[in-house]
Amino acid sequence: MSDLPKRVHIREEGPREGFQIEPGPISTEDKVRLINGLSETGIDHIQTVSFVNAKAVPGWADAEAVVAGMRKAPGVEYTALWFSNAGLQRALAFRDKLHVTGSLIVSASDTFSKINLNRTRAEHLEVLRKQVDKLRSHAVPVKRVGVMAAFGCNYSGDVSVAQAIEAADEAMALAASAGERIEDITLADSMGWCTPDRTEALVGAVREKWPDLHVILHLHDTRGMGVASAHAGLRLGVSSFDSTVAGLGGCPFAGIAGASGNIASEELVLLCHEMGIETGVDLDKLIEVARMAERLVGHPLPSTLLRAGGFRACRMIALRSEPQAA
Amino acid sequence: MSDLPKRVHIREEGPREGFQIEPGPISTEDKVRLINGLSETGIDHIQTVSFVNAKAVPGWADAEAVVAGMRKAPGVEYTALWFSNAGLQRALAFRDKLHVTGSLIVSASDTFSKINLNRTRAEHLEVLRKQVDKLRSHAVPVKRVGVMAAFGCNYSGDVSVAQAIEAADEAMALAASAGERIEDITLADSMGWCTPDRTEALVGAVREKWPDLHVILHLHDTRGMGVASAHAGLRLGVSSFDSTVAGLGGCPFAGIAGASGNIASEELVLLCHEMGIETGVDLDKLIEVARMAERLVGHPLPSTLLRAGGFRACRMIALRSEPQAA
Repeated sequence: MSDLPKRVHIREEGPREGFQIEPGPISTEDKVRLINGLSETGIDHIQTVSFVNAKAVPGWADAEAVVAGMRKAPGVEYTALWFSNAGLQRALAFRDKLHVTGSLIVSASDTFSKINLNRTRAEHLEVLRKQVDKLRSHAVPVKRVGVMAAFGCNYSGDVSVAQAIEAADEAMALAASAGERIEDITLADSMGWCTPDRTEALVGAVREKWPDLHVILHLHDTRGMGVASAHAGLRLGVSSFDSTVAGLGGCPFAGIAGASGNIASEELVLLCHEMGIETGVDLDKLIEVARMAERLVGHPLPSTLLRAGGFRACRMIALRSEPQAA
Repeated sequence: MSDLPKRVHIREEGPREGFQIEPGPISTEDKVRLINGLSETGIDHIQTVSFVNAKAVPGWADAEAVVAGMRKAPGVEYTALWFSNAGLQRALAFRDKLHVTGSLIVSASDTFSKINLNRTRAEHLEVLRKQVDKLRSHAVPVKRVGVMAAFGCNYSGDVSVAQAIEAADEAMALAASAGERIEDITLADSMGWCTPDRTEALVGAVREKWPDLHVILHLHDTRGMGVASAHAGLRLGVSSFDSTVAGLGGCPFAGIAGASGNIASEELVLLCHEMGIETGVDLDKLIEVARMAERLVGHPLPSTLLRAGGFRACRMIALRSEPQAA
């Protein structure tokens, strides 16, 4: 167990993931309220909005208004998602509030690439190549590679470790040829194929090939394996995780209506704390924000912890009922 | 990983756990339908009903009618829950259909004992002593000890390994003094305090003290740690688990309304199968029964897998789209 990280870094994606998929409509004010609430929990990285085509993702038609409205708390890094040059321009307009960095996101599954991005892996690499030039012209650093469908694909079945490594390698080669130095790699379970074994195998292979890269796990709990897979990652020393408060979100392109998506941030924080791993997050405050998220969307969200509450209150009862020294 | 069991035995408790807590009313016919459905999945142990006071648990006022109505499938062991002598008599009336065995169930938390059983641990041991005599007079063997609140308690906080072992030891001593030979020990997470670490610690301590006892884990997913804790158990070679289809149930005495209970049988089966561990269960059939359970109770149940579906259909797509030899 000596590989356990001392501290885990939670990369909160609830606002961006959640409001993209919720049938809504959810008011701009409520979106801002959730982001501001998260800023008070000790989480220091929040993906806030998605600068995408409003026709494709109506839930993010008000991305600009949300960024303009949210309060920037000290010590918190706010990011946004974007894919196209138009999206990049919209993000750059908020460089005072948003931490704008470039990422090379590829898919380990050809089929998922076609469905999610509407292009083959080869076509997508060409698009990325042009994107890197664009980013460079705006002095936006490219530090991260992301591999979607890294654990399996609802449209093409199992994804082998070799396939995921190959997809990552293509993105790494592209970065190298453009003179960019990648620091982080996100292994993303876009459609709920993670298991503890697959997590161990893929993290191990990535570490072996790129020992200097910092691994970020983006796990989905779609089939109930998310927390167990996160635990497998923790045991290997993985110290950065994407997650969403209350388990907000899900992948609109995964082909399963109503399926749950990302692991819930508060469940991951509880797991870390019970293992003696720091997160810097106030779990009770985070559970309160999870409950707020459920009220905002108006239907039950996947996290079970938000209903049960953490251990602290129960431990307080125990302390209070201990005999006191006179 | 050499400790992994070759085969895992699922002890399905969905009907008994679920219909005890559901606000209902659920018809006797529907209860029978669920049990009969489970009998077709390959699961070979089903806890069907609870012979308890109908005033305390109105959901089981029709326990007799359910047992009378259910079809007994070959190779499947059907059990029932009961606490009092009156309950035992009711179970014995169905000895042709039910596998009636005695268990010594104790609580590792004094407070939970008082709330759940309405007596202190010492008072409860006296009740158990009389129960053993009664069982003996009916030639009912006592083969199992169960420890409730073995991982923690919502009313008294953390439960140490030593406390859980002490409670088990009291029950073991009682059995020994009555000349009964205990074979199984159930470690029950009645209120959702399990974590992978606590599971490892407790299973390890029980194994050390009673190397010949067969360990059964009864884990709750109330705070999202159920599957991860089951995985920790599997890694230690635990090969028997209580679980409930669709995650039916929850503990009516845990003090948290709406909190989820047992781990979902189908999620445990998927985990085992992906680890190469046999269960004898047809996962797709079990997911269909989970969906039936959700229809019967009329509201969403905690299992996420029942919404997402397993991997088989996705793998079939992959097979079909592979190029065929001409």
